[in-house]
Amino acid sequence: MNYALIMAGGVGTRLWPMSRANRPKQALQLVGDRTMFQLSVDRLSPLFKPESIFVVTRAEHAPILAAQVPELPPANFIIEPEGRGTAPAIALAAIHLRHFDPQAAMVVVTADHYISKEKEFQRTLQAAIQAAEEGHLVTLGISPSGPSTGYGYIQQGRQRGIAQDLAYYQVERFTEKPDLETARQMVQSGQYSWNSGMFIWRVERVLEEFARQMPEFYAQLEQVEKTLATPAYENTLKHIWPRVAKQTIDYGVMEGAKDVVVFPVDIGWSDIGSWASLLDLLPADAEGNILNGPTLGIDTRDSLIFGKDRLIATIGVKGLVIVDTEDALLICPKDREQEVREIVKRLADSGQERYL
Amino acid sequence: MNYALIMAGGVGTRLWPMSRANRPKQALQLVGDRTMFQLSVDRLSPLFKPESIFVVTRAEHAPILAAQVPELPPANFIIEPEGRGTAPAIALAAIHLRHFDPQAAMVVVTADHYISKEKEFQRTLQAAIQAAEEGHLVTLGISPSGPSTGYGYIQQGRQRGIAQDLAYYQVERFTEKPDLETARQMVQSGQYSWNSGMFIWRVERVLEEFARQMPEFYAQLEQVEKTLATPAYENTLKHIWPRVAKQTIDYGVMEGAKDVVVFPVDIGWSDIGSWASLLDLLPADAEGNILNGPTLGIDTRDSLIFGKDRLIATIGVKGLVIVDTEDALLICPKDREQEVREIVKRLADSGQERYL
Repeated sequence: MNYALIMAGGVGTRLWPMSRANRPKQALQLVGDRTMFQLSVDRLSPLFKPESIFVVTRAEHAPILAAQVPELPPANFIIEPEGRGTAPAIALAAIHLRHFDPQAAMVVVTADHYISKEKEFQRTLQAAIQAAEEGHLVTLGISPSGPSTGYGYIQQGRQRGIAQDLAYYQVERFTEKPDLETARQMVQSGQYSWNSGMFIWRVERVLEEFARQMPEFYAQLEQVEKTLATPAYENTLKHIWPRVAKQTIDYGVMEGAKDVVVFPVDIGWSDIGSWASLLDLLPADAEGNILNGPTLGIDTRDSLIFGKDRLIATIGVKGLVIVDTEDALLICPKDREQEVREIVKRLADSGQERYL
Repeated sequence: MNYALIMAGGVGTRLWPMSRANRPKQALQLVGDRTMFQLSVDRLSPLFKPESIFVVTRAEHAPILAAQVPELPPANFIIEPEGRGTAPAIALAAIHLRHFDPQAAMVVVTADHYISKEKEFQRTLQAAIQAAEEGHLVTLGISPSGPSTGYGYIQQGRQRGIAQDLAYYQVERFTEKPDLETARQMVQSGQYSWNSGMFIWRVERVLEEFARQMPEFYAQLEQVEKTLATPAYENTLKHIWPRVAKQTIDYGVMEGAKDVVVFPVDIGWSDIGSWASLLDLLPADAEGNILNGPTLGIDTRDSLIFGKDRLIATIGVKGLVIVDTEDALLICPKDREQEVREIVKRLADSGQERYL
């Protein structure tokens, strides 16, 4: 059987003040009237029954997300006592799936991205599952639209096969977020794609890699696995998880893994990481504005104005991000919105938890 | 006896969204923790007992203002059924005062201005009352700090006298708001001061001028006066006032009046007409900001941020006016804040009364 795992553990600090500790990014309606999490489930639904869709998230976010997609069985929400990076999160889900179905193949997607070409995405997933069943660790590589320094890159080598008319290639190398010059060279070479954070593999196969490359963690994982479906599970997980070393799936597994392949895809993928990314993604009006909620602009251009109930009146505003919530308001030029993190940090440092 | 009249009939459109139809400018705390109206009363209190301080305002604003200064007798709020300009407002108050005290002298001040040198203001009023008792129509002229095109100007002629060590001068001419070139010439000549809208005169004397210069209106006024202290007053006023021609005291009376004098004064006078005027008036912090309410700024300068309960976080903001209220928010560069009126107009035109 095939299963999908939605990684929904983040908060989305750069989308403050809309994203909050108790209202994570994936629970927000950022594109249209479905939340990021709902969109993730929607995209998977033609391929997976609700009972085959799993979610790994934090305890405090599980009820929020579960309420948004009531058709998912509550037991499919796999709770991490605390976040230890993508490698442990995926491994935890993998042992759950192995417990249900030792032959399981799994698709790992995130709730952080928007995908405009759903049919193409679904077609790729089907091809990727076919490649995974042949034993490959499969990743989806996004054709770069520019020399972004915000993503990791995947270098592709020789073609390894074709599934459902889609060619896939040997992965030569995973690279970290590069500097601009390196990014330029990589994009120019035509050999690189962006690391989407989406993976497809047989559960047994990726757990093999965990065992081989992260043996210490794998031993911890086995202790948890032994207690699956027993009353001891929750306490064991709570005891072990804080002792687990933080690790990403890229560093911990993919870089050193055998037989990794990539499908270069064009699925209309966008990282919804920040307000600027929404300015790039969402359709603007004739003045270049993206407006949400009641607004009244005089000479207002190229701005993202995300309000809700209150009227936002602007005069002579250009390239500004304005995000209004019940108790906090953000105003910053779109080219400085990476500093939103600094706002969140200062709030945390000054003990203003109510705004976090 | 001497009486003071506070003109408190305006709304203060340019201070939207803080000023509203039911929350006029004079009822707002714009400078410190006293409202404009409270500050007006405070300034008069050393010279006038509460029962000698009158207010002319609109029916809907009277309860708001009365609640702010409970020591004023409710009967001292003179209600205009609708605003017909400063001339009718002053005349209406004048017949009330003549009814109480035919010998009354009256000081007319507005609630729209801030006066930082209160002692100097009070000293000038005492001198002006002395001059008024000699039969002059007295006005206070503000020494211009620049060639403003936002005020009317008063041209002074020969000295007419000295009261309490302060010289006062014949008024040669009242002029309308000038263009910039004219304003420059006037300021350079040293003969002009700004028309403050503050006047001091004996009630009988100003009513003489109304009778002479605005005979049609004066006849209407007499009809109202006959009903003073009778049950017919309110209905008579309501019947007559909409028929009264709109007129300002400057055009209707002062320009054509006999024996008008001016005290050139330096009383730290500021017109609080707009957000930019507050930026000029209020003390800024080291970054040039005037902050009110919870704020968190990164690289934020020369801005006025007026919030209340909600956090306003800003990044890379310069010279911006940000005013946040419960149901509406304004963002505009300080040099375009004259367009706030246009926002209010558009809201009215589109039937969005709840924001007015």
